[in-house]
Amino acid sequence: MRSATLAHPLSAALDQIHTEAQALFGQGQVADYIPALAQVQPRQFGMALALTDGSTFTVGDAHTAFSIQSISKLFTFVLALKVVGDAVWKRVGREPSGAAFNSMVQLESEHGIPRNPFINAGALVITDMLTTRYAHLDYALLGALRRLTDDPTLSWNVQVAKSERETAHRNMALAYFMKSYGNFVNPPELVLDNYCRQCAIEMSCAQLAQASMFLANAGRDLNRHGQADEQMLLPDEARRVNALLLTCGAYDAAGDFAYRIGLPVKTGVGGGIVAIAPGMGTVAVWAPELDAKGNSVLGAFALERLVQLTGWHYASR
Amino acid sequence: MRSATLAHPLSAALDQIHTEAQALFGQGQVADYIPALAQVQPRQFGMALALTDGSTFTVGDAHTAFSIQSISKLFTFVLALKVVGDAVWKRVGREPSGAAFNSMVQLESEHGIPRNPFINAGALVITDMLTTRYAHLDYALLGALRRLTDDPTLSWNVQVAKSERETAHRNMALAYFMKSYGNFVNPPELVLDNYCRQCAIEMSCAQLAQASMFLANAGRDLNRHGQADEQMLLPDEARRVNALLLTCGAYDAAGDFAYRIGLPVKTGVGGGIVAIAPGMGTVAVWAPELDAKGNSVLGAFALERLVQLTGWHYASR
Amino acid sequence: MRSATLAHPLSAALDQIHTEAQALFGQGQVADYIPALAQVQPRQFGMALALTDGSTFTVGDAHTAFSIQSISKLFTFVLALKVVGDAVWKRVGREPSGAAFNSMVQLESEHGIPRNPFINAGALVITDMLTTRYAHLDYALLGALRRLTDDPTLSWNVQVAKSERETAHRNMALAYFMKSYGNFVNPPELVLDNYCRQCAIEMSCAQLAQASMFLANAGRDLNRHGQADEQMLLPDEARRVNALLLTCGAYDAAGDFAYRIGLPVKTGVGGGIVAIAPGMGTVAVWAPELDAKGNSVLGAFALERLVQLTGWHYASR
Amino acid sequence: MRSATLAHPLSAALDQIHTEAQALFGQGQVADYIPALAQVQPRQFGMALALTDGSTFTVGDAHTAFSIQSISKLFTFVLALKVVGDAVWKRVGREPSGAAFNSMVQLESEHGIPRNPFINAGALVITDMLTTRYAHLDYALLGALRRLTDDPTLSWNVQVAKSERETAHRNMALAYFMKSYGNFVNPPELVLDNYCRQCAIEMSCAQLAQASMFLANAGRDLNRHGQADEQMLLPDEARRVNALLLTCGAYDAAGDFAYRIGLPVKTGVGGGIVAIAPGMGTVAVWAPELDAKGNSVLGAFALERLVQLTGWHYASR
Repeated sequence: MRSATLAHPLSAALDQIHTEAQALFGQGQVADYIPALAQVQPRQFGMALALTDGSTFTVGDAHTAFSIQSISKLFTFVLALKVVGDAVWKRVGREPSGAAFNSMVQLESEHGIPRNPFINAGALVITDMLTTRYAHLDYALLGALRRLTDDPTLSWNVQVAKSERETAHRNMALAYFMKSYGNFVNPPELVLDNYCRQCAIEMSCAQLAQASMFLANAGRDLNRHGQADEQMLLPDEARRVNALLLTCGAYDAAGDFAYRIGLPVKTGVGGGIVAIAPGMGTVAVWAPELDAKGNSVLGAFALERLVQLTGWHYASR
Repeated sequence: MRSATLAHPLSAALDQIHTEAQALFGQGQVADYIPALAQVQPRQFGMALALTDGSTFTVGDAHTAFSIQSISKLFTFVLALKVVGDAVWKRVGREPSGAAFNSMVQLESEHGIPRNPFINAGALVITDMLTTRYAHLDYALLGALRRLTDDPTLSWNVQVAKSERETAHRNMALAYFMKSYGNFVNPPELVLDNYCRQCAIEMSCAQLAQASMFLANAGRDLNRHGQADEQMLLPDEARRVNALLLTCGAYDAAGDFAYRIGLPVKTGVGGGIVAIAPGMGTVAVWAPELDAKGNSVLGAFALERLVQLTGWHYASR
Repeated sequence: MRSATLAHPLSAALDQIHTEAQALFGQGQVADYIPALAQVQPRQFGMALALTDGSTFTVGDAHTAFSIQSISKLFTFVLALKVVGDAVWKRVGREPSGAAFNSMVQLESEHGIPRNPFINAGALVITDMLTTRYAHLDYALLGALRRLTDDPTLSWNVQVAKSERETAHRNMALAYFMKSYGNFVNPPELVLDNYCRQCAIEMSCAQLAQASMFLANAGRDLNRHGQADEQMLLPDEARRVNALLLTCGAYDAAGDFAYRIGLPVKTGVGGGIVAIAPGMGTVAVWAPELDAKGNSVLGAFALERLVQLTGWHYASR
Repeated sequence: MRSATLAHPLSAALDQIHTEAQALFGQGQVADYIPALAQVQPRQFGMALALTDGSTFTVGDAHTAFSIQSISKLFTFVLALKVVGDAVWKRVGREPSGAAFNSMVQLESEHGIPRNPFINAGALVITDMLTTRYAHLDYALLGALRRLTDDPTLSWNVQVAKSERETAHRNMALAYFMKSYGNFVNPPELVLDNYCRQCAIEMSCAQLAQASMFLANAGRDLNRHGQADEQMLLPDEARRVNALLLTCGAYDAAGDFAYRIGLPVKTGVGGGIVAIAPGMGTVAVWAPELDAKGNSVLGAFALERLVQLTGWHYASR
């Protein structure tokens, strides 16, 4: 991996976006539902690009670790797809939800089958599947992320995980509700333990861009440290994960994100967003202030501008 | 426009798909909610490709005219975007609906603002906007489609339009419901007259592929009859329409279509589907038998196979 | 009919209530959805009691005519029960709705069958039944009310009816929605004409108490002008109408009304409430200021106090 | 307490109802959601009347103990009203729900405040309140019921309680859901333990009629064993509890029960129903076969017939 020179147009684009984004500080609010997240300093902004040719570009706080929160749903889903395959679709759908990320209503009218793997109910089902499969899911997931980032110290924040677990009443309700429909195998308490740990994993933008590279690269992770590439997913699987991220990756703002940005994304209430430009590379952006739908204000702006500057919108060919 | 030779790989692909699709006859059901549609002979299949280089490929019943039904929503939305611009978003959203195409529930919880322009409520609002703008909307729309297809005889089926108008109770309810929220300007009766006529427009696959070419070609219609190209939409607008088609174009199967096919589409209960491969071309397919969500069974299969054979999935780069 | 002397305890109770109620002026708001209703002077209060022994008691503006609005639903339902009988239950339920009086949501999940005859959708179905039965429903209903009140001049307010008809978009939506489910026979336009006229009927408290007497008197209207009593309903039917009024007569405040007042009631957004004390008599109260659920603030207070003072609560024996 | 002679008209009425009810065996189904309930012999029928004058009448299996299930909600609510008073209404409403007894939908749109104390969510909140108040709620409740029935052996079925607790996923979901809205104080696990034990209490018709006598007797329990009467509730409180039972006591069949029967009732999926005739007495009936809404088929029939034979309908005066 080589570092890009300042003269590179993508580097210039990042600098420009970094400058423009400053104007938006103060328009959103830091997630306040757990104390540990509420204490994050709001005026931070980082962005990282990783291209399929191995080059990377960063700006701002791109190397500061933050709580990935729902972005973890992307990685657990990929893990489930690897170990369970198409059988995941027996227990979760793949349609946009048209409702808030933690709504019960749809779950009741659709008999305990969550709309997609990226709303909370769907992610809980995925974690339930993985809990069945792995004796220590938390370490299985960490192991995968450590491999993908080459960082053996990557871990979750114990305090955040504990805090989330203590206030996870809504997610407990979702888990028990699905259990009442027969769509939950393990004890909700156990699955929630795993779920809260995965949400509390901390990564930087640079690491996130790196870890999701296989989605931009036909399922193949890039050669690192002289090792052979790893085929995380089949090309066809990677393509489909991207389709899912495009339609369901930004909670109930998925349509707006597709319209404005046009790239598969996954957002988290920690303020992070990871976006995939298939064949090109990946982008990770982080800024803690959120809009009313729980997506990073500066993060969404930064991606919209990047797409305008690069023409990476999926329909721009 | 030149016709492709048999030897062309795309021509071979169409032939293969045509053959394979036969096996699916009988799996779906022809739309039966109006007599005129119910009488359509079910075992028909046509497919047409139009590339941005001007070449075209067809197979089966690609020149048989059929009722475009909800595919008309794509053209009325484009018309509204041209004449009203971004102001359309004051009266309609751009999020997937997560509910059936004619549901009232979401409309109530969201105070009369339809989720997107491709569910019935949203399309009615679009037609309401156009009804305000055009003294004779039906002819304005026909005029645009006749220009795009070079076919001055293109029209709607009077019998189908009449039949739909007589049974349009649900759509009348949607229109009056939005009127009660102040989101409907013209008399519902008048708007429904226009709406039913636009749904009853008849086009062939070859014509549909041709008429939607500007969406694959950065907003620019292709040179026809020695005339200059027409810039239907700005490149940026075309890109955004495609994003909207990808997330909202297949009713509440949008997620599944994105996953399996990965192209912007618009489907209709007449059995037609039009798909856009930005930068490549357009595809129109028609087969009257529908699945439970109102989408053509053979049509969806044909698109899925075409994407597999061509690699046109938006995330395949 | 003899007038009661001032010394009568019920007369004293009315006086006391009248005095106490003054303190509540200003707590509610006059219905503002049509201009004609919005212009009503808010600080008015009238109350009338009619006992089964023929005596009557009034206080305040008990002889001022006001718009009965939804109280008309009581009379149209009784009329439907007389002419259609138990067949009414094929097209409307008899359960409390648990939702706002004009909600669509429940109607969709229950396939076009309204919850009960006293929410708007249910009343529209009732008026549809009566429209089928009577060439001039408006005059049939007026005829019945004129007989019950001995007032040949009783009528509807043309201006209010017209104004309501022009803004009846929500009710038109409900009618067309039920028509889409096959639960509406006549053209919605025609039924809405009748519906708006019946809502615009004007009666005083004294007249309302008189007109509903048969419900307190085992279905039998009291002898008037030397004529024989009229058996409006069978005793069993009257009993059941009262049960329905107790569970469904106050929109989605029915439970609260039953808890606080414990009498069958029907309320209207004109500020009127009629209450039935089976075997005892009837009470009508009117005060235009409404609470958030559309029920008269002073009216509900007055009934609650009357029940406390008289022990007429149905469960007080 | 004296036993009535055979010649008494109420005794004859019970005999007649007992005979007629036989014809309905087989029309319903025994609750099957827990094994212990599913094994109950379906063709059983018992009925008991207790009058405010101290006389009692029984027929059939009136002395067979059965699982009272949701009828326990009546007794826990009364207990909460005694110890918490009107403050109960801060955490639960008093409107009919218009939805199934265990629905989540309403709870979400109304921010965690259950509609009334007799749907599951409402009863869980009541048990949560009592769990805060009593170190051993189960024994506090048993103590009250033992006093009311003069039966020191009255208890819950350990096997049924255990079985219900193991499958209480839906109720756990409701509890956690309310906790997420801040409307649940104790750990759901603990409250559910209490809740399942109270549902598993076993009583006979004769005991149920006896235990609920205070509701028919202005809040005053009848003299037993030479002891002084106990004022369980104030007269006004008893009246209001009855109003609540009339509008909310039969799940989403409350309107139909009011219409057909016209008495405050509480039903349970064990097949029991208790009904109150204020000023007259109480009725308990039991037959395990349930209709689609979870109410006893023969029980509802028996009450409807009893009201016809006695004229006890609340609106019959």
